[in-house]
Amino acid sequence: MTTLSLIGIGCGDPAQLTRAAIDAINAADLVLIPRKGTAKSDLADLRRSICADVLTNPATRIAEFDLPVRDATEADYRRGVDDWHDAVAATWSQTIADHLGDEGKVALLIWGDPSLYDSSLRIARRLDPLPDIEVVPGITAIQALCAAHTLPLNDIGKPFLVTTGRRLREGGWPHGVDTVVVMLDGGTAFQSLDPDRIHIWWGAYLGMAGQIIMSGALAEIGPRIVATRQEARARHGWIMDSYILKRGS
Amino acid sequence: MTTLSLIGIGCGDPAQLTRAAIDAINAADLVLIPRKGTAKSDLADLRRSICADVLTNPATRIAEFDLPVRDATEADYRRGVDDWHDAVAATWSQTIADHLGDEGKVALLIWGDPSLYDSSLRIARRLDPLPDIEVVPGITAIQALCAAHTLPLNDIGKPFLVTTGRRLREGGWPHGVDTVVVMLDGGTAFQSLDPDRIHIWWGAYLGMAGQIIMSGALAEIGPRIVATRQEARARHGWIMDSYILKRGS
Repeated sequence: MTTLSLIGIGCGDPAQLTRAAIDAINAADLVLIPRKGTAKSDLADLRRSICADVLTNPATRIAEFDLPVRDATEADYRRGVDDWHDAVAATWSQTIADHLGDEGKVALLIWGDPSLYDSSLRIARRLDPLPDIEVVPGITAIQALCAAHTLPLNDIGKPFLVTTGRRLREGGWPHGVDTVVVMLDGGTAFQSLDPDRIHIWWGAYLGMAGQIIMSGALAEIGPRIVATRQEARARHGWIMDSYILKRGS
Repeated sequence: MTTLSLIGIGCGDPAQLTRAAIDAINAADLVLIPRKGTAKSDLADLRRSICADVLTNPATRIAEFDLPVRDATEADYRRGVDDWHDAVAATWSQTIADHLGDEGKVALLIWGDPSLYDSSLRIARRLDPLPDIEVVPGITAIQALCAAHTLPLNDIGKPFLVTTGRRLREGGWPHGVDTVVVMLDGGTAFQSLDPDRIHIWWGAYLGMAGQIIMSGALAEIGPRIVATRQEARARHGWIMDSYILKRGS
């Protein structure tokens, strides 16, 4: 029997690691580190440096493996994701079988928190044989963004919506809320909104050395965020950003 | 000039502390610990035991103080909160002046994350003199709840709403989402919903020794959660719980 620990490691700053995360890494017989190709090699590097930093158990081994690539030509998005999850699960199973056999404790270091816009829990449930699964929560980009801006996320007693760039672009300002958190925005979906009375708090590379944050009235600061984002993306070769929008009364 | 660090400490399990939180506690000249009265004395105890556990800086002092009580007879809820925030800010200012003077680093340990359903950031902005404010994010009850249930919070590419028990009770199932996180529910607002096709993941005392979690079809498990909650509240003298609802297709 194997146990699989999905360990949230925060969003870039190793100081965001919890004591539970450090303990779980050291409790593992095997830590799996996925390589995702050149664009995101910074992320694999972060996982490696976290292991080098906190791993004190000499019995814990580290295994790197190449993640399969999602078939972007599949017209049915959900089917494409489904096939990709199967392929990733097969790769995990094979790597575990190669390095550990059928008994022991496996750890995967997850960017942010395993429960938030992450596929690992869904993939873990496709493993064969099915392991015991445990989750160690980690600091998310939303929390790092609020902390960097010293921003209360919700207004007093009010709700907020967490959504994706795609949905914001397609659906406009969501019904019934004045605070919206936007994740997974490959572009700058806030440009699709009428900026009147909207305030934005934006951040990229949160918690990392290259962290950039900007905030202000969307009408004024929006175009500057677009330009800053484009320049930063070109310089780094990749960008991870998120933002919070609040609509004034 | 003073700096005020609002430090998220997670929701009950000291293992949820991040390295940044431990560093920030040890960087403080003064740690303020509010006493909230008997019902929540467990929470003051947790703050004390965290300090005893992680504080290695002999120069850091700890000051306890009594929080003012909010005037529940004030008919205007917003005005009542506003007055209470002013009173708390005055208490913080006085305690800082008494124990530190007008220069140094002050830390406040915040349940969960200072950005999520917490007043400390708003109160901090009312301090006189105004300090530099910094936020250290912490693991929230939402994350502890998902981890305990090994539950992915969002469905793939889908949004979710975080709201309060009161709003759920008054407004019913929110528009445009199939996943709802309910915080600050003094009762069991899920009872106001038609339970058909709704699944619930509930947890109380998350991360603490007395943690209870239950999940299932709301129609079946809802009444059992109500009974469990009532019994646990009577036994502990207080309860902190939250839950996630998902609506099936």
